[in-house]
Amino acid sequence: MNPAQYRDLNTSTRVLLGPGPSMVAPRVLRALAQPPVGYLDPEILALMDEVKELLRYAFQTQNDLTFPVSGTGTAGMETAIANFVEPGDGVLTAISGFFSDRLADMAGRYGAQVTRLDRPWGEIFTPEEIDAALSKGKFKLVTLVHGETSTGTLQTRVAEIAEVVHNHGALLILDTVASLGGVPIEIDAWDVDICYSGSQKCLSAPPGLAPFTANPRAMDVFAQRKTKVVNWYLDISGLSQYWGDAHKYHHTGPINMFYALREALRMLAEEGIENRWARHRSMAENLWQGLEALGLPPRVPLEYRLASLTTPQLPEGIDEAAIRRTLLNEYNIEIAGGFGPLAGKIWRIGLMGHSCRRENVTLLLAALGELL
Amino acid sequence: MNPAQYRDLNTSTRVLLGPGPSMVAPRVLRALAQPPVGYLDPEILALMDEVKELLRYAFQTQNDLTFPVSGTGTAGMETAIANFVEPGDGVLTAISGFFSDRLADMAGRYGAQVTRLDRPWGEIFTPEEIDAALSKGKFKLVTLVHGETSTGTLQTRVAEIAEVVHNHGALLILDTVASLGGVPIEIDAWDVDICYSGSQKCLSAPPGLAPFTANPRAMDVFAQRKTKVVNWYLDISGLSQYWGDAHKYHHTGPINMFYALREALRMLAEEGIENRWARHRSMAENLWQGLEALGLPPRVPLEYRLASLTTPQLPEGIDEAAIRRTLLNEYNIEIAGGFGPLAGKIWRIGLMGHSCRRENVTLLLAALGELL
Repeated sequence: MNPAQYRDLNTSTRVLLGPGPSMVAPRVLRALAQPPVGYLDPEILALMDEVKELLRYAFQTQNDLTFPVSGTGTAGMETAIANFVEPGDGVLTAISGFFSDRLADMAGRYGAQVTRLDRPWGEIFTPEEIDAALSKGKFKLVTLVHGETSTGTLQTRVAEIAEVVHNHGALLILDTVASLGGVPIEIDAWDVDICYSGSQKCLSAPPGLAPFTANPRAMDVFAQRKTKVVNWYLDISGLSQYWGDAHKYHHTGPINMFYALREALRMLAEEGIENRWARHRSMAENLWQGLEALGLPPRVPLEYRLASLTTPQLPEGIDEAAIRRTLLNEYNIEIAGGFGPLAGKIWRIGLMGHSCRRENVTLLLAALGELL
Repeated sequence: MNPAQYRDLNTSTRVLLGPGPSMVAPRVLRALAQPPVGYLDPEILALMDEVKELLRYAFQTQNDLTFPVSGTGTAGMETAIANFVEPGDGVLTAISGFFSDRLADMAGRYGAQVTRLDRPWGEIFTPEEIDAALSKGKFKLVTLVHGETSTGTLQTRVAEIAEVVHNHGALLILDTVASLGGVPIEIDAWDVDICYSGSQKCLSAPPGLAPFTANPRAMDVFAQRKTKVVNWYLDISGLSQYWGDAHKYHHTGPINMFYALREALRMLAEEGIENRWARHRSMAENLWQGLEALGLPPRVPLEYRLASLTTPQLPEGIDEAAIRRTLLNEYNIEIAGGFGPLAGKIWRIGLMGHSCRRENVTLLLAALGELL
């Protein structure tokens, strides 16, 4: 081992306009770098209570079980699946993108009888077709993605879908990884049962935590489990005791990430959630206008276009990867390409949290103007 | 929501001498606070390769599959269990503390036929009794804890135990959460098949990552699985592609934690691992002498006493919790109490990584001298 081969950390200062992570505000980075206290220190326990309360504001919920999972967004997804699926349970997965597909894979691993309701990538679902699909069998859970990072769609009519799901005696799991803190979400008003997100998109904390919430209806169903949750790390019976008043040891919480998430959520509270939603919408509209003018119209129709992630349709014959490379290497701007059926056909441009600023929209449009 | 109720983050500066997290060096905190780049940025991919190589040095291994799991130490434990247990597999768990017990619980959840080899908390195992236990059945895995955080024991003779395990055609899983980077560990020389640790103890990065390694023998067994790994997030078939040359997207890596772990591992490389082991030993001996002088002799016999975590035997009638509270509130020093069968009988004093310094030993002993 020659330690000299490992140089001082000196990463570039990127303008992060991809699908996440988004840029992290200096004050959040400062909080992140606060020296840690112990995982049962009274100061961290008080801070954990604050994080829960701030997350309730972000989710617009009063759910008691509201906390960040100690892993990334996918761990949040798995918390939803692992705790509410038992072998043989019927799960309806509404699939029109990469992450809804992942939910189906995950549910199958936990023994669910998965029924796929497939639509082409980039479309959304109506309450009527969810109702029709639920009428054909017996289901315990329905999974739905609110903002789909692979396509840039916003699933609308969530409250109506939740009502349909409840009429069939099932629970609704909603993925808000790409939308929480950026576009309107009202967990209680919509009556969503189980919801998870990620710290690194519209909340603009570093990646590594997954906000999670479940309502009393979901917890009643959880209490009726006949089998232990296979996944020890994500079992909410242990996690709820760690995050509850008892603060019973479960795992060593990622203290510094708690610091950062608290600061990021505090910024959200200071801005006010309605103002934040309006900022994301207004910046996205600026971006959409600019992209149209460049001949790169957003692919998703306006009525279900996600404000936090825009997916412009690329012209035939463009070397999109070369342009993205130049943006990164010469402008320090990150945007992402499409993948799966949308590879080469779209870009994915995020305006999330601290990345969602006027100067970033203007810079990106000007840079694209130079390169196209 | 009244944001004013959430004040500026202002946690105390603790001298962390509990079972972890340990103190984090300023340069590691600075690395942690570097603004993130994207999760597929060429700069982070190069950094991930460095982290793997530095981890190989820490583990003293050439294993290709060596990387940090995106979760805390318990997620590392679960990575070992979830990937190598299939329903019906025989697992022998050597249990003499809290974390070995957790391994048994976890293995059972994944469908293992768990055979417990129990010893009182605070004891260790001989190769002979492992051999005898393995002779009584058919086993795929043996779990063993190297440094047990709940008792302060160091499992010696690991290489001999590994040989016994292999003679029975099984694999050895070794928990080094409390020992990696603090006491001698040689994964290849000992022929340990699967090993995991945590970032926040002797490596002295913040909590949130779990170093993991598996050797070719283990990977051959993994390749013969008949069922999908139930745990999606921790499935090494996906993780190995994310951490391998392809760097195929699996989840959004906790970028800032990667920065911090790299810096902490770079400090280990600069110090040299043998020097680091010697420092932990030498500081522990200082502590042990001082504790003896105070009438608080270490409970674990010298031959299998863990250098990174010392567990002094407390005198009858002492209000140990009150002393710990005073240490925390008046001296800003954290040490931990015992739990389970050792509650009230021991303290747990960690000298790990950046906490393992002469000034901290001297301070703690002097403070205890004032309070006893």
